[in-house]
Amino acid sequence: MQELMIDLQGGEKAPLYERIYRHIREEIVSGRLERGEKLPSTRLLARNISVSRSTVELAYGQLLAEGYIQAEPCRGFYVCDVRELYRSDRTESRSASGTAEREESPCIVDFSPYLVDTEHFPYNVWRKLSKRVLQDDREELLLAGDGQGEVSLRREIMRYLHRARGVNCRESEIILGAGNEYLEILLAQLLGPGRTLLMENPGYPQAFYTFSGMGYTVAPVPAGTLGSDREAMRTARADLAYVMPSHQFPLGNIMPLGQRAELLKWAMEEEGRYLIEDDHDSEYRYRGKPIPSLQGIDRGGRVIYLGTFSKSIAPSLRISYLVLPPELMERYRQVCGFYTTTVPRVQQEILYEFLAGGHFERHLNRMRGLYRSRHDFLLGELKGRRWVRRVSGEHAGLHLLVEADTALTEQELCARARARGVRISGLGAYDLTGNRENGRPTLLIGYGSLREDEICQGLRILDEIIEQRP
Amino acid sequence: MQELMIDLQGGEKAPLYERIYRHIREEIVSGRLERGEKLPSTRLLARNISVSRSTVELAYGQLLAEGYIQAEPCRGFYVCDVRELYRSDRTESRSASGTAEREESPCIVDFSPYLVDTEHFPYNVWRKLSKRVLQDDREELLLAGDGQGEVSLRREIMRYLHRARGVNCRESEIILGAGNEYLEILLAQLLGPGRTLLMENPGYPQAFYTFSGMGYTVAPVPAGTLGSDREAMRTARADLAYVMPSHQFPLGNIMPLGQRAELLKWAMEEEGRYLIEDDHDSEYRYRGKPIPSLQGIDRGGRVIYLGTFSKSIAPSLRISYLVLPPELMERYRQVCGFYTTTVPRVQQEILYEFLAGGHFERHLNRMRGLYRSRHDFLLGELKGRRWVRRVSGEHAGLHLLVEADTALTEQELCARARARGVRISGLGAYDLTGNRENGRPTLLIGYGSLREDEICQGLRILDEIIEQRP
Repeated sequence: MQELMIDLQGGEKAPLYERIYRHIREEIVSGRLERGEKLPSTRLLARNISVSRSTVELAYGQLLAEGYIQAEPCRGFYVCDVRELYRSDRTESRSASGTAEREESPCIVDFSPYLVDTEHFPYNVWRKLSKRVLQDDREELLLAGDGQGEVSLRREIMRYLHRARGVNCRESEIILGAGNEYLEILLAQLLGPGRTLLMENPGYPQAFYTFSGMGYTVAPVPAGTLGSDREAMRTARADLAYVMPSHQFPLGNIMPLGQRAELLKWAMEEEGRYLIEDDHDSEYRYRGKPIPSLQGIDRGGRVIYLGTFSKSIAPSLRISYLVLPPELMERYRQVCGFYTTTVPRVQQEILYEFLAGGHFERHLNRMRGLYRSRHDFLLGELKGRRWVRRVSGEHAGLHLLVEADTALTEQELCARARARGVRISGLGAYDLTGNRENGRPTLLIGYGSLREDEICQGLRILDEIIEQRP
Repeated sequence: MQELMIDLQGGEKAPLYERIYRHIREEIVSGRLERGEKLPSTRLLARNISVSRSTVELAYGQLLAEGYIQAEPCRGFYVCDVRELYRSDRTESRSASGTAEREESPCIVDFSPYLVDTEHFPYNVWRKLSKRVLQDDREELLLAGDGQGEVSLRREIMRYLHRARGVNCRESEIILGAGNEYLEILLAQLLGPGRTLLMENPGYPQAFYTFSGMGYTVAPVPAGTLGSDREAMRTARADLAYVMPSHQFPLGNIMPLGQRAELLKWAMEEEGRYLIEDDHDSEYRYRGKPIPSLQGIDRGGRVIYLGTFSKSIAPSLRISYLVLPPELMERYRQVCGFYTTTVPRVQQEILYEFLAGGHFERHLNRMRGLYRSRHDFLLGELKGRRWVRRVSGEHAGLHLLVEADTALTEQELCARARARGVRISGLGAYDLTGNRENGRPTLLIGYGSLREDEICQGLRILDEIIEQRP
């Protein structure tokens, strides 16, 4: 039985019993009072809200008459099932990729490029580390810690970034935050309002929305032109550029060294210009040497480095980090120093142990092998399929691009796949100009979370759709 | 021994050996190469970066000559201690309250109003729940979950808010985020740019900075005037007001019902006006009935409710929530629907179990008793002290206000206390107009984290400072 909190002191003119009746009715309709729940007795409610018992009896009588509650002799009043009367949105849910979506049919194979493997996560290690962190009733873990994130964790990240990505920084220049979007918001606050940001197109819609949401003018330019078409960059009058030089999303391009140098030169030309390097999934490269970061060759302090553990550990971890050049770091302390990192401290400690104990690099190596074999398997499966016109973006990351030979449009193809239980997206979904139908249908095939049999199953369904078999 | 990643392809004109020398020197000065660390052999490095061995030998020779490295016969080259030469900021740390601060002396007693008890946290329960959540290798916990936060947790929060705070909402109207500041940023994005926000003064500086940082005009008005001085509200031309009606921070006032009704009326007068109700620590009230939320009496959908588990569980947990009125929720789905909650999923699951298992309310009851007894003890200790002129803000929350009778200014008082190991703040620190010396010195004495003997020790030091004893 729930206690009812009924406010009778508002300025309403309606009689008391009616206000009680309306309140309870609202509770039932909204589902806050659930079917079968017992109402307080008239005597109890009358006492609690300081009205006469007859007033409550009048209210209950009305609810009874209208079928909201029912009386059970000697037991009391119970809430009726009113679901038939009112649709409630209480059971809505969202898909794994975070977008609200009416499910036409259950999802059998999910080719989303954002998914990672969840089967080979070192649960045992993580459990052990969690236990160890929580073991000693360490009281300081409950208190707000360092505003930028714990020093010990930042030091480990600094070391990892230096070793693996050639990033040059101090731990004091690293800021931890819960996810890229949060850090992008922070960055927009730090860099100040009214800026114009160049962004390669197609790209990450989330980043586009986040910066637009912060009032920035985001100017999409064709991927591959940043650092090559100087004139275009000048006419855009931008003072920021968001780039993914080591592995462009979703195309998978690597930015040539000459373009990198041009970009850095552009950034140096005027005060306040910065490059935002999103190094989202550069851990996964299956052929050739790792591509060092742009930050590592920046001598002018113009590169802001953005990294994440979403792809290398798990998206649900919500740990990303910014590396700021010294000048911006100084400004951060003045402008944003009052923010406390959004990453919970226990989580930081566990991640610290995961990095410091060498588990992270072991995990990365294992996953690199696993993803490589899925990548190779998928490539092999695609070969020889008639509708596969061209494969690109291979040898790195967690998805590849397939240009399909079909009379269907990209959106039709994706919709039909979805109706058959295959979640898949086309390149149009990542077009920042909103131009969703653009040339030949191109599919993003993510394999991060899929076993070989699932890859086969998904491709077979695509075969059937494209070859117009039922 | 670290692998060195040296970029030799930049546009620099300097000879190769010099670039290698400069690179390694930078690494040592910045502390990325640590004292005692072994450098790769000249042969190995030469091979790795594809230069001749004599080039590397030249570079090492220069480093040797300048004392950055030393040679140990038959063993190799090692990094020297250069800390004397360069100050590094690698060991900087921040105080528990998150602000960078030069520590004059170790902190013995911390009267910060933001601290909570860490001794009585139910570590055992939390550990058990963590273990249970992680036990079953639940793969979905690694993937991004519901963008607003898991439905199960939101449902528990909805039930708790309804029961304890009289808040009326559906779970679909709740948004979880990592801390109040993050949610305030989100809110500013949602409500759109260029707004004017009324804020009671003194108040939470963090909220002030956050909304200012988002480009809002924040207009401080004297605490207690919101909802009473209609004329003043009109002249401010504001369309938002940030209020803490159940327990104003830092003054501890409760907003009278009449003012609440006036505020709601003001909000209803024009399209797009909203009240932001920050219900930060209303769990802790030691005398009289709980004060129901403003949201609960809002019939027009004008109250945005902001709550947190920072005070009721732990600041380091970083879990806060917004309850949006239906109209704004609709807008949120359109404008901010692409955001994924910043709260890690495992953390959400643990909190869900904590709430659903009844642990949260048990914990609250225990803590309420504990804080009440500290509060009573502190009140008793203050009574009879000659310098205590007036105590206010008592009977709720985790701190109270003491007007001190002293010739010292508030800032002098706090600085002297700090020098003696007592961290304490004055009312001026929460003045949003920046007017820090305002009438008689008034101290905020937080007791959330202090045992009785620590309270006594802190007060004795304050006695000595105020009575000018050494």
